[in-house]
Amino acid sequence: MFTLFGRPKKHVVAPRLKPRSSKNAPDTNRVALAELTPQLSKYLGQAAYLQLSNIEVLSNLISTAPSVADKVAVTRIAALSVHKYEGLVAEMDQIGENAAELMEPFAPHIETFQRATLGGDWYEGLVTSYVTAGILDDFFIALAEGLDDDAARRIRSLLSDQASDLMVAELAAAIEANPRLASRLALWGRRLVGDTLLVARSALAVPENQHPDEARLEPVFTELIAAHTRRMDQLGLTA
Amino acid sequence: MFTLFGRPKKHVVAPRLKPRSSKNAPDTNRVALAELTPQLSKYLGQAAYLQLSNIEVLSNLISTAPSVADKVAVTRIAALSVHKYEGLVAEMDQIGENAAELMEPFAPHIETFQRATLGGDWYEGLVTSYVTAGILDDFFIALAEGLDDDAARRIRSLLSDQASDLMVAELAAAIEANPRLASRLALWGRRLVGDTLLVARSALAVPENQHPDEARLEPVFTELIAAHTRRMDQLGLTA
Repeated sequence: MFTLFGRPKKHVVAPRLKPRSSKNAPDTNRVALAELTPQLSKYLGQAAYLQLSNIEVLSNLISTAPSVADKVAVTRIAALSVHKYEGLVAEMDQIGENAAELMEPFAPHIETFQRATLGGDWYEGLVTSYVTAGILDDFFIALAEGLDDDAARRIRSLLSDQASDLMVAELAAAIEANPRLASRLALWGRRLVGDTLLVARSALAVPENQHPDEARLEPVFTELIAAHTRRMDQLGLTA
Repeated sequence: MFTLFGRPKKHVVAPRLKPRSSKNAPDTNRVALAELTPQLSKYLGQAAYLQLSNIEVLSNLISTAPSVADKVAVTRIAALSVHKYEGLVAEMDQIGENAAELMEPFAPHIETFQRATLGGDWYEGLVTSYVTAGILDDFFIALAEGLDDDAARRIRSLLSDQASDLMVAELAAAIEANPRLASRLALWGRRLVGDTLLVARSALAVPENQHPDEARLEPVFTELIAAHTRRMDQLGLTA
């Protein structure tokens, strides 16, 4: 079990006890997070650069796909991320900000994250996108709670359009064709969670010389991990 | 001057004599081409795989962009190609065909073309996308003339949305910052035309054991080259 804050999480809900339909992002505990939502321009810069990083990961998978069918499937997944990215850029345009300038400060940290999570082969790369984009979209949906109502509504709607079904179809087929992939991908998925939650955590607007109230934040991260567990479960893998 | 069919083209229109506003695809000589338009499924498979190849070229440029601003600009250009690709896939869906199956036969040829036109650095890669996607979109717009009216109208509208302005802004800035780039990029642009026109030519539905009427086709290719010359002219480069 992954613990971000060094305390065991005894109350992670076992995924198989939850109905399969609860695929949506966590929607409770938003109040705790809203207090730590950065200002809109920072929120958008970081969220957009994370989409761009996901587009880069998926683009690389398009180029190296084992078959044309895989190429087509991954392009469909990448197109969804392009759509989200464009929506976030449109939000920056709307507040009169330059997209590149808002994204720039987050480049070094997110590029380090991207390098650390590349994966050793095509299938691990696909799991990288599935796991990291899944967690981060969920996180930014929750974090949007602290934005003004109109922006929050648009951004939540934009980020909610997840590629899960396409991803699950693609990965489940690969695992079925090569059952030995399962344990390796499960292990890889587990490794990704730590780095991904640290990126999420770094997006919080914590006042200087202060620490966020870990006890209040913990349920947010517990929900992110529970949603991640459900995503791995959809692949038949243990989180 | 480039000649595809071994005959000198004496009547290529000098670009500076044409109004800048004539940036659109050639729209005469379509009748000659309509007779050689392949059936819709083949047309779509090839056009979609060419967009996908352009997306791959641009994706690589996103990952290797020299700055975040360049990354953002190229992502905007790539998003346009993703939009075209998705539109073509939607056309395949509409006629009940599987996108991957229709694209598959064109993969080897287009991948060879992609490898031959990669370019030696980031700026040459950008010129590759500008020149090859420019010519091929123009060509497939002209070739759509032989499709049924509804499909032709939708596809022409889809492919007409060109990224020229974004490309020109990006490349012109690079050339201004480093004037020595100009002659190298002009040379590279010239080299690309041959391979690109051969890919276009391979899309024609020429009956077995027959040759197309070169004399009737020549004006089509002359127009493609004239449009290419105008595109290079927009960069201040000689085609």
